[in-house]
Amino acid sequence: MARINRQWLLATRPADFLTPANFRWNEQQVPALNAGEVLIGLTYLSLDPTNRGWVNEYASYLPPVAIGEVMRGIAIGTVLESRNPRYSEGDRVHGLLGWQRYAVSDGTGLTLLPKDPGFNPEVFFGLLGHIGMTAYFGLLDIGKPRPGETLVVSAAAGAVGSLTGQIGKIHGLRVVGIAGSDDKCRWITRELGFDAAINYKSEPVSQRLKELCPKGIDIYFENVGGAILEAVLDNINLHARIVVCGLISQYNSPQPVPGPANLGKILVCRARMEGFIVLDYADRGMEAMTALGRWHAEGKIRYRVEVVRGLENAPTALQRLFDGSHRGKLIVRVED
Amino acid sequence: MARINRQWLLATRPADFLTPANFRWNEQQVPALNAGEVLIGLTYLSLDPTNRGWVNEYASYLPPVAIGEVMRGIAIGTVLESRNPRYSEGDRVHGLLGWQRYAVSDGTGLTLLPKDPGFNPEVFFGLLGHIGMTAYFGLLDIGKPRPGETLVVSAAAGAVGSLTGQIGKIHGLRVVGIAGSDDKCRWITRELGFDAAINYKSEPVSQRLKELCPKGIDIYFENVGGAILEAVLDNINLHARIVVCGLISQYNSPQPVPGPANLGKILVCRARMEGFIVLDYADRGMEAMTALGRWHAEGKIRYRVEVVRGLENAPTALQRLFDGSHRGKLIVRVED
Repeated sequence: MARINRQWLLATRPADFLTPANFRWNEQQVPALNAGEVLIGLTYLSLDPTNRGWVNEYASYLPPVAIGEVMRGIAIGTVLESRNPRYSEGDRVHGLLGWQRYAVSDGTGLTLLPKDPGFNPEVFFGLLGHIGMTAYFGLLDIGKPRPGETLVVSAAAGAVGSLTGQIGKIHGLRVVGIAGSDDKCRWITRELGFDAAINYKSEPVSQRLKELCPKGIDIYFENVGGAILEAVLDNINLHARIVVCGLISQYNSPQPVPGPANLGKILVCRARMEGFIVLDYADRGMEAMTALGRWHAEGKIRYRVEVVRGLENAPTALQRLFDGSHRGKLIVRVED
Repeated sequence: MARINRQWLLATRPADFLTPANFRWNEQQVPALNAGEVLIGLTYLSLDPTNRGWVNEYASYLPPVAIGEVMRGIAIGTVLESRNPRYSEGDRVHGLLGWQRYAVSDGTGLTLLPKDPGFNPEVFFGLLGHIGMTAYFGLLDIGKPRPGETLVVSAAAGAVGSLTGQIGKIHGLRVVGIAGSDDKCRWITRELGFDAAINYKSEPVSQRLKELCPKGIDIYFENVGGAILEAVLDNINLHARIVVCGLISQYNSPQPVPGPANLGKILVCRARMEGFIVLDYADRGMEAMTALGRWHAEGKIRYRVEVVRGLENAPTALQRLFDGSHRGKLIVRVED
């Protein structure tokens, strides 16, 4: 059966924001499989802030997406045909399958997902998959929390931030979230159990952190960078840990963004600032999934997923990660 | 016997550089000792870049020196009188004794030094004391070097930097130093065994680092901050460690100095930036002294000490730490 693929290709590199104008829609016939290959029909595509870093001309933690190449994206799908003995028709798989209806893969980087007919892509992307793993390993492995300490989370109403704060509460921390609207602040405090929240668009962040973290900040889970990092550094404790998960405030800047002017706090507080990428934790995924699944079953952790319908809407939807108009996890249902 | 003390008091806070105009000379009679106190006659005073941070109005890792107070300084001296059972006349002691001829102490923060008549204050300040400990614990405990890795050291002809590079060589690292003159670069490569050196005043640092560190930078021992930190971040490897020992380029700035614009490298390289203060290692001093003493006896490590004569010259001499006109360790012989 000849299948027609539908794809978003990277057409141009963005000077600042990644917009629909940077993509080109493409339709072409899916080629016949070579030995060792599988054909995957994508079902759900994850939109993540890190997508922005992949389209710069310089490498981030992965090589740049080339101009004319299918846009890179984390997705799940179903094996439709297989010439690879490790995969069978009907297998559910996960990987960097790209912004397209069909992907041909030699198996590199593919992960098999449970065959359970109750498998729920929203639970997977909102809680158990790379988002949950990022929150789990970032906070616990890099942040090394001790009960009674104070955790501050930025982009606290985002997919990772909202889970991180809740994992912090489960570990006995005081948790203060920073978000960009009063609605988001209400959501994380009233529904997710954060102790307090700061609307960085309307409140003086450094001063509010001082008030809301009377014992100082022990762990900062950094998703944004820029002025908020500086405000947090003003208020860190001795031996504070700054977990660098993302720097979303800088991804779209056409110019280099200066770092915090108070980096000397790292020295006088003997603090540690450490970056991490969830890809490095792939072999420990079961540990995170087991814990996150249990906490969810016990009612200790909630997540929110917003589903955009149709691959054709992916470029427009991606912008919502950067304009502050979403909460929780954003995914695309590939076929509407 | 009535003794007249001679002291440098902090008269005003510096707007930028700490100069003799910020100090006031004072002479006053040494008071009689209370029970529990000792009178110490200072012999040698250490001048350190960190002194600058102690005179700002905000706290660094120690509270600020108050206006009108004796300038804080690390020094050694001899117990002249004692009303404290832990100390006897003739004991040699070390501590934050201040910029003065005599210090009265209740013993807080004092350390007893060996009674050995061969005790050499130059060896102590240049190699075995807080300078050696800073290089030793900063590189080994925070930097965690593995043989074959590449170490970059800034302020590499300074007291700490010159030892750090040599300890790096002892541990099988490729060592590249950054210093502020061709003379200093020659000294660290030809006499101290650094593999290469960069004169940051005449060479493009990022490009030279790329050439001189063909396998990238695994450890950066940071003494300066600013543009050099940014150039180093350009060239770090996956899982690099940035040991924040000092940020001398920023200490004298009247305005906050922006941090590096490429802090995102911490994220994509999963790097760790960590501050430390040698005071935290006080209880492990013997470990460092033993190793440093052995390496020196084996001819594997050299140090350089410059002695300024006379307490009255301390404020003028301190400026040399910041104008780049010295190498190695700067100390003041209190009585000329």
